[in-house]
Amino acid sequence: MIQPFDDTYFMKKALQEAQEAFDKDEIPVGAIIVIKDRIIARAHNLTERLNDVTAHAEMQAITAAANFLGGKYLKDCTLYVTLEPCQMCAGALYWSQISRIVYAARDEQRGCINLNTKLHPKTKIEGGILAEEASDLMKRFFIEKRNLN
Amino acid sequence: MIQPFDDTYFMKKALQEAQEAFDKDEIPVGAIIVIKDRIIARAHNLTERLNDVTAHAEMQAITAAANFLGGKYLKDCTLYVTLEPCQMCAGALYWSQISRIVYAARDEQRGCINLNTKLHPKTKIEGGILAEEASDLMKRFFIEKRNLN
Repeated sequence: MIQPFDDTYFMKKALQEAQEAFDKDEIPVGAIIVIKDRIIARAHNLTERLNDVTAHAEMQAITAAANFLGGKYLKDCTLYVTLEPCQMCAGALYWSQISRIVYAARDEQRGCINLNTKLHPKTKIEGGILAEEASDLMKRFFIEKRNLN
Repeated sequence: MIQPFDDTYFMKKALQEAQEAFDKDEIPVGAIIVIKDRIIARAHNLTERLNDVTAHAEMQAITAAANFLGGKYLKDCTLYVTLEPCQMCAGALYWSQISRIVYAARDEQRGCINLNTKLHPKTKIEGGILAEEASDLMKRFFIEKRNLN
């Protein structure tokens, strides 16, 4: 059976968000939140534009999804994010009790896995979906930045 | 020499914020951010009212202080918070590169110390200022909650 709404489909949507961040000269990270194959939040990193370290894609997506659902817990939701969440975002996801986190590229240095950020027991995390695309966009961003400076 | 603006003075201001949260039926945590003895942000927990797990006192204070300063790094700033920050808030404080964190009560279970959340090398953290007052307010909150249910 053909599954039109699979992890790759949704990660592509998160990558579109990352591209929007890129176009705004923001570190290109995008996130979406899905419940029952329906996208209920889309966001991209806006830390520069908003002058706010808390404006990561995931944080905005969590707030938007809770707003959509009318409740603060993200039960039965999946977050698709183009970069492994940092401590702050993983900490927010802990409080949200989200069911599943799917990330594209790893963040060995500042990601929640190597930093051992605690996730909620109800949360599953997996990675690697479209990792190369996400990582290429990131590399392209930093190369362009370097060439401009 | 009398020091009117010491840690106790500022923690009292954070406690006033915690009391405001209490009065709104929110878990009573308050935070302020200070630069050169001047309070540039005040906030209290609003997770219930905003239906948003990210609406911790510290997160709002970080956003407000960056807004006040016109830049996202909280260099030379001190955060006073009535409860030891959680992973999310400590993760946000990491990104902010804040100079100093002073908390009142410990949070053994969900606080950043026992969960080993990484702070920025530029950040000092210390605790225990008005710990009993902060902890009493918290206990009173949960006792009242229990009696109402």
